[in-house]
Amino acid sequence: MKNTGLKFPAVLLAFLFHITVNAQTMSTKEDQNRAAIFPKGDKAPAEYFSGTAWVKTLVANDDTLTTIISNVVFEPGARNNWHTHPAGQILICTEGTGYYQEKGKPIQILHASDVVRILPGVEHWHGASPTSRFTHIAINVNTEKGVVNWLHPVTDEEYNKK
Amino acid sequence: MKNTGLKFPAVLLAFLFHITVNAQTMSTKEDQNRAAIFPKGDKAPAEYFSGTAWVKTLVANDDTLTTIISNVVFEPGARNNWHTHPAGQILICTEGTGYYQEKGKPIQILHASDVVRILPGVEHWHGASPTSRFTHIAINVNTEKGVVNWLHPVTDEEYNKK
Repeated sequence: MKNTGLKFPAVLLAFLFHITVNAQTMSTKEDQNRAAIFPKGDKAPAEYFSGTAWVKTLVANDDTLTTIISNVVFEPGARNNWHTHPAGQILICTEGTGYYQEKGKPIQILHASDVVRILPGVEHWHGASPTSRFTHIAINVNTEKGVVNWLHPVTDEEYNKK
Repeated sequence: MKNTGLKFPAVLLAFLFHITVNAQTMSTKEDQNRAAIFPKGDKAPAEYFSGTAWVKTLVANDDTLTTIISNVVFEPGARNNWHTHPAGQILICTEGTGYYQEKGKPIQILHASDVVRILPGVEHWHGASPTSRFTHIAINVNTEKGVVNWLHPVTDEEYNKK
């Protein structure tokens, strides 16, 4: 029984270490899943996206609501091509750190809760920052006027001009 | 030193209890804040809502995008009046358990990731379940055709007919 005093702190430390490690794992997982309200959906087409992005259609187009809503997840470094929307688009940012740029203007940094109003015909692109995943809900309004006109990819030089 | 063997388990138990309690507190807090992407906003008008709800305008109306977007948080038991939207509305559920009912149909239960397409002129109401907070993003499209026509409150009898 002489060593009992040493044995218990060792057990205690092992328990605490185990619990701390588990808590950290859980916390990281929680952070990653915090805004994962929707399933990832399908891989975004390489024709219009650089890097890996995922698109989940939430509302498909129709003649009554004339609105398309998609949840888009960009892996770090991923972005879409330069493009325009004939009737405009609204982005609601829900997770991570993103980039948004309109032609001739500096890149804007986006975070959860940021909302971007993209006016009709404005050339722009959006995507994740180089080190963080980024998720937004994209709302195409008044689709009877058109949805999107895709242009050329955002070059690494344009993307890294930060 | 004779009692050391008893003292350490007591310390260990106390630690474990402390850690367990803290972990539970954190977990509950995480759950509550999981989808709190937006600040709560302003209290919804008692004229059109029963119970406590909060409205944060994300996109105000304008002639270009003709769209209004709001984040609405309903405390447990809160709901809006029966109403119609001349041009329709889309609900994107982000947190908690909610209710949605169209006139003459049973109440539908809503959870995070559910999307509701409300067609123009359809009489309906939405809100939280009796025991859970509920949050959705509400998107009013084609606002040039009108936004909302408020009707009478949802009675307790209607609300509890589940």
